[in-house]
This record gives sequence, C-alpha cells and structure tokens, in this order.
Amino acid sequence: MIRFESDYSEGCIPEILKALEKSNMEQTPGYGMDFHCENARDLIRKACQAPKADVQFLVGGTQTNITVIASILKPYQGAICPESGHINVHETGALEATGHKCLNLPSKDGKISAKQVEKAILLQKNDASFEHIVQPGLVYISFPTETGLLYSKKELMDLYKVCKKYHIYLFVDGARMGYGLASKKNDLTLRDFAKYSDVFYIGGTKVGALFGEAVVIPNKELQTNFRYHIKQRGGMLAKGRLLGIQFEELFKQNRYFKISKKAAACAELLAKALEDKGYEFAYEPQTNQLFPIMSNKKIKELRKNFAFHTFGSIDKNHSIVRFVTSFLTEKEQVKKLIKEL
Amino acid sequence: MIRFESDYSEGCIPEILKALEKSNMEQTPGYGMDFHCENARDLIRKACQAPKADVQFLVGGTQTNITVIASILKPYQGAICPESGHINVHETGALEATGHKCLNLPSKDGKISAKQVEKAILLQKNDASFEHIVQPGLVYISFPTETGLLYSKKELMDLYKVCKKYHIYLFVDGARMGYGLASKKNDLTLRDFAKYSDVFYIGGTKVGALFGEAVVIPNKELQTNFRYHIKQRGGMLAKGRLLGIQFEELFKQNRYFKISKKAAACAELLAKALEDKGYEFAYEPQTNQLFPIMSNKKIKELRKNFAFHTFGSIDKNHSIVRFVTSFLTEKEQVKKLIKEL
Amino acid sequence: MIRFESDYSEGCIPEILKALEKSNMEQTPGYGMDFHCENARDLIRKACQAPKADVQFLVGGTQTNITVIASILKPYQGAICPESGHINVHETGALEATGHKCLNLPSKDGKISAKQVEKAILLQKNDASFEHIVQPGLVYISFPTETGLLYSKKELMDLYKVCKKYHIYLFVDGARMGYGLASKKNDLTLRDFAKYSDVFYIGGTKVGALFGEAVVIPNKELQTNFRYHIKQRGGMLAKGRLLGIQFEELFKQNRYFKISKKAAACAELLAKALEDKGYEFAYEPQTNQLFPIMSNKKIKELRKNFAFHTFGSIDKNHSIVRFVTSFLTEKEQVKKLIKEL
Amino acid sequence: MIRFESDYSEGCIPEILKALEKSNMEQTPGYGMDFHCENARDLIRKACQAPKADVQFLVGGTQTNITVIASILKPYQGAICPESGHINVHETGALEATGHKCLNLPSKDGKISAKQVEKAILLQKNDASFEHIVQPGLVYISFPTETGLLYSKKELMDLYKVCKKYHIYLFVDGARMGYGLASKKNDLTLRDFAKYSDVFYIGGTKVGALFGEAVVIPNKELQTNFRYHIKQRGGMLAKGRLLGIQFEELFKQNRYFKISKKAAACAELLAKALEDKGYEFAYEPQTNQLFPIMSNKKIKELRKNFAFHTFGSIDKNHSIVRFVTSFLTEKEQVKKLIKEL
Repeated sequence: MIRFESDYSEGCIPEILKALEKSNMEQTPGYGMDFHCENARDLIRKACQAPKADVQFLVGGTQTNITVIASILKPYQGAICPESGHINVHETGALEATGHKCLNLPSKDGKISAKQVEKAILLQKNDASFEHIVQPGLVYISFPTETGLLYSKKELMDLYKVCKKYHIYLFVDGARMGYGLASKKNDLTLRDFAKYSDVFYIGGTKVGALFGEAVVIPNKELQTNFRYHIKQRGGMLAKGRLLGIQFEELFKQNRYFKISKKAAACAELLAKALEDKGYEFAYEPQTNQLFPIMSNKKIKELRKNFAFHTFGSIDKNHSIVRFVTSFLTEKEQVKKLIKEL
Repeated sequence: MIRFESDYSEGCIPEILKALEKSNMEQTPGYGMDFHCENARDLIRKACQAPKADVQFLVGGTQTNITVIASILKPYQGAICPESGHINVHETGALEATGHKCLNLPSKDGKISAKQVEKAILLQKNDASFEHIVQPGLVYISFPTETGLLYSKKELMDLYKVCKKYHIYLFVDGARMGYGLASKKNDLTLRDFAKYSDVFYIGGTKVGALFGEAVVIPNKELQTNFRYHIKQRGGMLAKGRLLGIQFEELFKQNRYFKISKKAAACAELLAKALEDKGYEFAYEPQTNQLFPIMSNKKIKELRKNFAFHTFGSIDKNHSIVRFVTSFLTEKEQVKKLIKEL
Repeated sequence: MIRFESDYSEGCIPEILKALEKSNMEQTPGYGMDFHCENARDLIRKACQAPKADVQFLVGGTQTNITVIASILKPYQGAICPESGHINVHETGALEATGHKCLNLPSKDGKISAKQVEKAILLQKNDASFEHIVQPGLVYISFPTETGLLYSKKELMDLYKVCKKYHIYLFVDGARMGYGLASKKNDLTLRDFAKYSDVFYIGGTKVGALFGEAVVIPNKELQTNFRYHIKQRGGMLAKGRLLGIQFEELFKQNRYFKISKKAAACAELLAKALEDKGYEFAYEPQTNQLFPIMSNKKIKELRKNFAFHTFGSIDKNHSIVRFVTSFLTEKEQVKKLIKEL
Repeated sequence: MIRFESDYSEGCIPEILKALEKSNMEQTPGYGMDFHCENARDLIRKACQAPKADVQFLVGGTQTNITVIASILKPYQGAICPESGHINVHETGALEATGHKCLNLPSKDGKISAKQVEKAILLQKNDASFEHIVQPGLVYISFPTETGLLYSKKELMDLYKVCKKYHIYLFVDGARMGYGLASKKNDLTLRDFAKYSDVFYIGGTKVGALFGEAVVIPNKELQTNFRYHIKQRGGMLAKGRLLGIQFEELFKQNRYFKISKKAAACAELLAKALEDKGYEFAYEPQTNQLFPIMSNKKIKELRKNFAFHTFGSIDKNHSIVRFVTSFLTEKEQVKKLIKEL
C-alpha cells in the first residue's frame, strides 16, 4: 500500500532524527527558552528578512490557529475566512470554544478576495444594528488553501491593504507554506508574508518535521505577551527545544525549500500524467495536493494498492480524488501510481 | 553546569530515538489511529489491568488537564483542587479559559483529604443560595503532588469513595506518575488508579519520553466522544503515531518503572546526604523532587556549578530549594552535588 | 411620527402596570422563588397543557437563547439553525461566546426543514473526519421566523421526529410566539410546542410585557439544574417576581392570545391594503411583520411621518420595507399609514 | 412576617411606577438609544461631575460584573478581588464562564488594601514562571462590601494609585452604592468614584429601582465599543428606555441619596438598639446591612415574625445574623423588630 492520503503519513527528514539524537543528553531550560529555539528563531527571521519579527513555536495547526486568533480578537470580534477554511470546517469548533465566530465568505476554490473582505466589513459597519453583529477583527487565509491553491503577491497585498484600511489584522495559515512557496506558479516569498501580513505561520508538521509550526509575528502590537496565550491554550511544550531543534534543521542550508521542491516535483509529475491521460481537475493543480475527478470504478481499482481520500461526488459515477505528495514521497511511488491510472 | 532544575531538561530514553528512526519511513493513518497507538494502548491497559479502559494520547500536561476536565464538567461546575494544584497556579488560567472555576481547598503540602472534599461539597449543596455557587463536579489531585508527596492507597480510596457518594468524578494528574510509583514510600499501583479513579494520566514528558501523556479512562461514561474534546482543545497530533511509538517503548519490558526507579534511587541518595548533613526539608522527601531548606549563602555558592530553582524564603537568610532528579540523571552527577553540599 | 419599526417601541399592557403598582409593597423572596412566579408557572403549564413542564423566566431574548443552548450542548456540539437565525446574525456572537458554533443551513425564507436537518446530521456523522467537525447537538428554529413566517404543525412534527431519531434536541425561539399563534395561517398551539419540542420560550418583551421571556421545558432531561445556568449567564433577576407578575397578567383571561390577535388584525388590515395597492412582498404576509417591496422614492416619502426599517435592496430603485404591528398598535395608526401608501 | 432578608424584597419607589405609566404609550427606539436614557445619562454625569464619562444601563449585578470585567481583561488576565467578592462566591462562576480567573486575596472583612494588591501584582510579575501564571488585569472591589463595610477616600485613592502604577484597572461594584454614600461613616462621593476608578456602577436594583444598574465609565479607553459587550453578554434590554426612565426618576431631585438616607437611618436605629442590648457584631455596622451575633435560640424565636438570613455559626450556640434595611423599610417595621430583640 502506497499512501497519497496526506503529507503527514510518515516521520521527518533524517537530519532531524540525527539532531535529536545528538542533542539528547544536553540539559536546557524548558518552554522554548533554550539556544536551539533562539537559533531557529534567527534562522527564520533571516529567511523572512524580518529582523524584528517575533518567532514562537507551537506543536500543531489547530492549536496555532486558535492561539493566534484568540490573542488578537476582542470578545465581540470574529475572524473573516473562506467557508472552506480549516478553522471553520475541520477544527471541531476550536475557535468558537475560545469565544469567537467564524465569519465565512463564500468561496468556490478556498480563496477570498480583498473586495469580498471589504464588502463584509462595510456590511457590518454600516448596518443600523452594527452593535448586534459580530465585528470583523481579522482575516484568516491559508497559503496554500485547503484546495491546494495559491494567492498571488498582488492578491496578498490587496488583502493586507484592505485590512490596514479598516484597522484589522491579516493572519496566514501556512500549514503547507513550503509547498506553496515551492510551486512553479507561486510569486510570493517568506519576505512578502512578513511584509504583507500581521502574523503567519510556517508549517513544520506537513513539511519535514515530526511536528511543529513556527509562528512569525512581524506586527509589533501582536508580539506583546503572546507567550501567555501559548501557555493558556496548552501549546507551550515543556521540552520546547524539540521545536527549536527541528526548525534549526529545516532552515539550515535552505532545506525547507529543497524538501518542498521535491514534493512539488512529484506533484508536477503526477499532475502532468493525469492531464495527459485526460483527467479533469476539480481545482487547478498548483501545489502538492491534486484533485482529479475520477470514475468510482477507477477509484475502487486504485484503492487496492494506494491509499487516498475522496472529497465528495461530482455525479453518480464520479468523485473528486485527492492525491497528496510530501517531502518524503519518492518519484518511484508516483510512477507506480501513474502506471495504474 | 549540572541541572537539577526539572525532570524535563534532557531528551528521552535512547530506545525511543531508535524507534523513531526505525519507524520513520512507515506510512500510517494520522491522529492516533495507527497500530503503534493501538499497541501502546494495549500495553498500558495491561499495565493497569484495565482491559476496558480507553487510552488516549496527548502532547502535554496543561493540554491534558483542560481537555479532561472540560470534557467532564457541566458549565456551572468547577474542579475541586488543592490551592497549590497545577491547574490553579501554573497554567495561566487555562481551565478558566474553558469556562470553569478552580475550587481551591487549603493545603499545606499539596494534598487534600476526602474529608475536606466532602465538606466542600456539602457547603455548596446545603447553602440556601446553592444555585448561585459553583457546583463541585470533579476532584483533581496530582500523584505525586507539586511538592513531591504521595497519596496512600487508603487516601485515594477514600477520595474515590466520597466522589462516588456525591456522583462526582476523580481525576488524577500523573505528570510524574512513574516517580510516584517508584518511591519506596508508595503503596499504590497503576491498577489501583484504574480502580479508584475515573480518569488519570500517565506522564511521559517528565518520565522518559520526548513528550506525551497517556490518558487512561476507566469510567465508561467518560469515554464517549472524548476524541472530539482532544481535537477541539488543539491536542490531536497529526502524526499521532509519535505518541504511540513513545509509549510503546516506555511500556515494553517494564521500562517505565525501571527508569523511574533509577530517578528514585538518585533522589534517595541525595535525600540521605542532605539529611546526614543536617538539612531540614520543607516537605518530606518522598519522590524525585526534594525541597531542602538552605542558607542563601549556600545557594549562591551551589549555583556556580548547579542549576536549580528556589521556592520562596523561610526567613531573611534561608530559602526552600528544589532539586529534581530524572530518568536521565546519573549517580555521578548527584555525587558531585553531594560533594559541594 | 408613528412607529412601525418594531414590536418593542412602547411599554406594556395596562394590566401589568396596575399589577406592578398593586404588588409594589409586597415583600417576597428573590430570584423567581415567589408566589407570583409560581402562579405564572401554573398558568403557563395550563395554557400548554403540560403539567410536568418546568417554566423559568428570563429577561430578554439573547440571554434566553444562549442560556438554553449552552445548557444543552456538549463543548464539541453546535446548534443547527437557518442562516438568518437570530443567534447567527443579531446577537453579537453571544452563542460563540459560550463556546458553541452556529451550524447554519441555507434558507431563503428563514425556515429549515427536517430533510435539511437530517442531511446536515448525516454529513457530519458519516464523514471520515467526523471527530474534526462540530457535531450537531440541537436544532434552533424561530416561530415565527425573522421573516414573519410560520412552521406548520406537520413541519414542526417532522423536525421533532428527526431530532429524536438522532438523539438531539429541538429548541423553538418564540420571541414573537403570540403573533405566530394568532395568525389566520397558523395551525399550531402551545400544546403542540410542548409535545413536539424539547424546550421553547414564550416571548413577553414583544408581546405585551415590559420585558421577559418564559422558557418552557417539557423535556425532563433538560430541567435539571437549569437555574444554575440562568444565574451563570446573568439572567437571574433579583426581583424575579417582576417576571412572575407580568406573566400572570399575560396569561390571565387568555390575554396573551387576545392582544396578539389585535396585532394580527392590524397586520392583516395593512397587508390587505398593500396587496390591493399592488405591492409585492419579499416574504408572504403571515404574522405581524410585513415585508413589502417599495420604491426608494415612496420610502423616502413615507419616512416623513412613519418610522420603519428597510431590509436590503431589490434593485437600484427598490428596497424591502418592514412594517411591524404590536399589541399596542391602534387601527387608527394603521389607517393613517394606508392612506399614504 | 416582616422581611429584613435583603434590599430587594419589595418593588420600587412610587415615582418610578408613575413614570412607567406616564411613558407607557410613548414610541421610542430600542436598546437604550432613547431620550429617557440620554436624559438619565446626563443626570448621572452631573451627579458624578464627570461630563465625559460614558454611562450605560444594564439589568442586574452579575450581568454587569461579567460584562464590565470581560470587556477589560485580555484572555490571560484575571480579576484581583477579595475572597468574599460577589464575583468569586455568588455568581455561579459567571466570570470564569467568560474565560477569566478570580485572583482572590484573603480578607477578613471583605476589603482589600493597596498594599495587598501591589504584593499580588509583584508576585506574578517577578516570578520566573510569570508566563505560566494568570496576570492581574484589574482590581474588583465592592462599595459597600458584602459585609456592609466602606472604603475610605484614602483607601480608594491608594488602590487607584497602585492600579495606575502597574497599568491595570480599578472597577467598583456599587450594587449598594447609595447605602454606602448615605452612611455617616462615609467620606466618598460619586465624584470621587469618577476620579479614582476606571469604571464603576451605581446600583438601582437594591436602591429604589425595580431593576437596573448604571455603569459609569470615566476612563475613555474603556468606553469604546462597550455596547457590543453588553449585547454579547445578553444585557441589552430591548425596551432600554425602562432603564432610562428608572434612573431619571432616581437621579431627579437628589432622590437616590434621599432614599438611601432613609434606609441608613433605619439601619442606624437598629444598630443602636442592638448595641444597647449588648449584641456584638461580626462586622462593624456601617451601612444598611447589619451582622449581629445572636444565640440560636433567639434566632429561632425571631423567625416567627421576621425573615432574615444567617451567615455561618460562631460556636455551637451562636450564629451571625444579617438584617438588611432598604429604601422601603419603615421605621415602624424596625421598631417592631427592636421590641422583640
């Protein structure tokens, strides 16, 4: 069985295992106050060309999303997000459990535009009953989206601009940041995210690490006392250095980008093959997640040797399939799949 | 610098590193649904002689405490705990952030008694304004306590009995469970906790693992839908198998107990030396945390070569010191400390 | 200026003022434990033919909604509601502030069907990632809806049936219950609500009282400790008797129904006139809220002498108007409006 | 049966009933945006000599406390309060339900001092684990306290000073404000509260109104968007004018002070008689709540004709009694009680 189910089916890059072994007997202070974390922070600040950004490490995505968002919003504010946003759909109401509403905008492809955001802000602001309506306090987007799509630099800048215009914040969920940056269709850099967002995170769990997400906070206002929030939401790892060590390895020698490129190459290979064989896609193939439409018969057949998810049906006989490549996917595995397509 | 600051200063037992390496390229389902987790669950159920208990893995202590407690309490209920309880003092209000009050009982040594609990329950129950007062919904204790002390089997059974009498739950925070079980002064077993509590957890972070806590739920009522709570509180690790792998290694060949014994032996050695040299203790030495009282001059002196915390002052010239041994502490390290006492 | 803005523009029925005066010097216990509340409870139980129902009084609608819903749901559960539901749109995220998500179903007219509800339940239940998705825990509907529409007895029974099938609860927001019951198009009674819902409330604020909502809880499971929830959510009035006194007056001599009939008659008169004059309606006129479509020019003209709200535009030149009649609206006032239509 | 149980046993001052009747058919906008509310705001601002203060009306005390406190605190902050504080003891965890911890200070008489507050602030601030400990974000005191005691002007100023020194807020719960101001032992004025606190409220429920509390916010920072919080916590009354009308009547012609004086006079009469008869007091008699110590035999005897509460026992044979006078208490009633003492 070869798994194209997700980008968290395996462990991590071998360099991380080596670093864990090497550091195992070191004695360090806890809670992310050790030199590995400091070093990783510096490496990330450099990669983002954001020397004044705060960088904090958390364990997983849902935890990171609620910690960041709940640290920003006032009680009567909510988070604008695409209706397919992870916070809205796949976090068991974790955000609501911190007291905040998801303000969903319709979105066919998982993206939202500056125009939509402005409209939503004005709708609340100009309503006679504005005090009875949740006030938008930030915009949440994912890069890439749940559907594997990218925002362009122009789109990001426009979103940031509209946020600044109305004094709200822009937060980018980068659980799969590496795969976004590595895409041939991408024109954004970490530096751009540090310039055109208030806070974002660089996903480790799905891109090379065993676990861990690096929250980058360029906006000074949001840096103060952020670590209290981490502790309160249960995200402060006692042996915080484990996160430092992993992000040190990921950001040494440009590794984060190299391993993402590898996954991107596998995805491109597979996308090309699917196109060549005439498959249509539910969403344009842009990153490591591909969404071809397949007959249920074919799906059944493929499932003998491959693990993958389906995402709803197109008609009685066809469904949307999701194939995901990861930093550990080998070309050989992709070729085996292509052979059976 | 030798560190006696905490039992989370280092990494993990070497067997875990090996297992992570060995399993690294395995492809498994996420979120704790893999065979390593299943296997670890079985090992733990066996160790507890509780074949019907549910076992779930979380990453850290604060997360585990709030996930368990918020899964049990009704909105108008609170958690009875000693005033020094970790949930009350050192979790940045994580429990309150889930909507629940800590109902603190006075405690000189970090322990609370069945009698105290019953009194607190009756006080609310019999008050004319009972509906205006938070209702006790569970009892939270730590084994060992923050002060390194143990509950006896009798004390645990009494607490459980009073909980059952009033239809509330007993939850045991076992962040340092191993060190409690390994103490010469202990008469409790994992089986006892499975019999005389509704839910407890076996700490990994401080006892051999890189991170991870194993929640054991003997009470069937509390098993239903517990995983929803884990996800909502941000505690469901994508690569859940990392937790499974670690607890597999910890519970193979009685390892959890062996490594705890090692830390206990180091602590006993140190406690003996301290006693011999005439130091008094703020709390009786029972586990891997020792609280001798030292002159501030001595403390300053020791700090040149040793890292440790102090816990408040006794008088102008004396403070309470905390020395902690761990599963990775070597006798040689302890001997170096003894030499300088 | 004559106001058709809302059904809470004026005070209350005169009988309530008289009763307040008469009872003013009485000394009674607080918090709803007095004989006026007891008497009002009995009158309401009789009106509902539900001798075993619990009846509790709260001050306002938002408070009632969150108190009821938060008392029912488990932390990982949400409330299914139409997207136009008051809890979703006009309560400043009060429900989310208690930790729960609104699970919105699309609805053109403010109503949702048993079929939609079942589909939503199954979608979550059958999803491979069900633990990552908020679980529906209750269904929230309004009778009449925000758009002035009614559920038929058949529709209510179907909703209740699907709720029971999946072991979730049905809660009916009856802020305007009287106007629903009084409609010529209605086939439901209070007894039906007591039979085919788990909990509902009978609005006083908009139907005759100065303030106050009577929560009726036919389902025994939901009765236990409900008063703790009222207190916790800030809804337990010190001089609770004020609510008892008001509902006593409202439910004496069938008054609640009589005053609602009066508002209904005014609405019918106005609806007839609007129809006669060729106005179309955004929603079918069924209760005391009418939603004719008018030219912006006409709207401007009418605003000289009448106060009312608009609800979005149909096209550049036309908007949806809302005219609301109340228990204190006089036919003369309606006739003045008709004259200027 | 004459009731000295509480100051909310009866209705309201007759002027309020008259005003409700007079205004009953007026049509006004809802939610506190009417001219009665505006007028009441002005009267209160004048009484406080605080022309720039915001004034908002809520229905009850618990609601007011949580709305104010949750509007001020950041998620990781708590409210310093005396351990006997209403928010800590008698609100069913309403504050915790908004996510915040009560940071209790020991207090024998219900008061806390600036010195205690500073110590608590520094303890958290200077702790090595400060990020793991709830940060004090405001100080909550009651004037008068639950035990009927007053803060002096000096004490209030000191508390305010220490709050400003550490950039936290001072909130005064004035549920019984009138009775505090009316005491012979008081040296504070409403103007002082407007100068030496950030936000406070003037209780109506217990001092002349049917219900209602007037929140006065001198601190500009805390004024912004406060009404969103009111709505979210369920405290925005649809017919908001009911609150405006009541506070208009209370603050016309110095009435709030006059009616409080009347209650004070009754309390003084009773206190004098108790002293003369040799009763000791659990707390010094300062306001409308008296706490004499009585034999259980005497208590039983008195209960034939009088209703009152007891507050714990002193020894086997003696308990603390609470007698409360109110704005409607008549001297005759007090004299009847005195006769039986």
